Amino acid sequence: MKIPEPIRGFVDTLSQLPGIGPRQAIRIAFHLAGRSPDTAFSLARAAERLGELKTCPRCFYIHESDASLCEICSSPIRNTQIIAVVEKETDVLSMENTGKFDGTYLVLGNIKKTGGLSETQKARLESLKKRIMAMEGEMIRELILALSPTTFGDMASRMVEQELSPYATKMTKLGRGIPTGGEIEFADPETLGEAIRRRD
Amino acid sequence: MKIPEPIRGFVDTLSQLPGIGPRQAIRIAFHLAGRSPDTAFSLARAAERLGELKTCPRCFYIHESDASLCEICSSPIRNTQIIAVVEKETDVLSMENTGKFDGTYLVLGNIKKTGGLSETQKARLESLKKRIMAMEGEMIRELILALSPTTFGDMASRMVEQELSPYATKMTKLGRGIPTGGEIEFADPETLGEAIRRRD
Repeated sequence: MKIPEPIRGFVDTLSQLPGIGPRQAIRIAFHLAGRSPDTAFSLARAAERLGELKTCPRCFYIHESDASLCEICSSPIRNTQIIAVVEKETDVLSMENTGKFDGTYLVLGNIKKTGGLSETQKARLESLKKRIMAMEGEMIRELILALSPTTFGDMASRMVEQELSPYATKMTKLGRGIPTGGEIEFADPETLGEAIRRRD
Repeated sequence: MKIPEPIRGFVDTLSQLPGIGPRQAIRIAFHLAGRSPDTAFSLARAAERLGELKTCPRCFYIHESDASLCEICSSPIRNTQIIAVVEKETDVLSMENTGKFDGTYLVLGNIKKTGGLSETQKARLESLKKRIMAMEGEMIRELILALSPTTFGDMASRMVEQELSPYATKMTKLGRGIPTGGEIEFADPETLGEAIRRRD
């Protein structure tokens, strides 16, 4: 008994995506194949449109605007003297949702669990350096290391700091402390320690 | 800050698939958008091909053969006097993989967690009845209730049994017992009871 080839092909493609195992991929494949063809076709169209998105050559955020630069990088009211280095596109969204940041970004790309920066990440840092060197003063005012405070995030932060410290007057990190709604009882000592140090 | 529309559209489509939540869908969308467009396009093509698959009008298995009937239903060596009612397409694959079954199938479709048969399931049972009534003797030799022995599987089994008992000389269920590699220590009393009763 052979699995129909289109099912097999879809399963192969789908199970390469983050967080999808072969079993779930098979379930999804038969689910789609069993519905009206429109369901599969609308997924196809949705995926196709994803492939047509552009990556901003400055901050590496993904966007759909007609211009080459993204909405943020092309905005005249954003502060290009303050750059936040984030890991993922969704981190840009999270930062934007706060409404508290008017600087610009550099999307570094997924942090590797093996330590070290990938070639893409190094290239992105290089492009930022070049851009800063072309600016007046060859330095920006502030570089925010906005990577998640996890073991690997902290490692990557240190590497980015080393690379970029000559290019920014000030290097900062996101504040650590008790999250809103979090209970002191369950805060780990490091978090609580940071919260005490940063009290105001 | 707006999420690019193609990302939003893909997330909407993807999060309707079984087992995919909105957070995972966003991760996958940005993952795909951040790769070379080929990755998204190959998913698009794979999904498109799924939409082109056919459903066998006899057993409701999904297939790609040029004929209207699937490989199993159109095979002259399969026993059409023995029909196994299974829940899912993947159950057909599991049964076929044993190499121990030469009968045919009826794919019932996902068993509802609310009890009762869906309209599609009723229609499939009706089509089976009609087919049997058109056969010589207006009965088949054996109908195997091959639904998973879960609470809802058992409920569905009973309903299928009621519907189809006039159309089969014999109604059987898959044997229950200790699974291969399973430890008696961890078998629930019902399973162990069945294993004792069915000893040979």
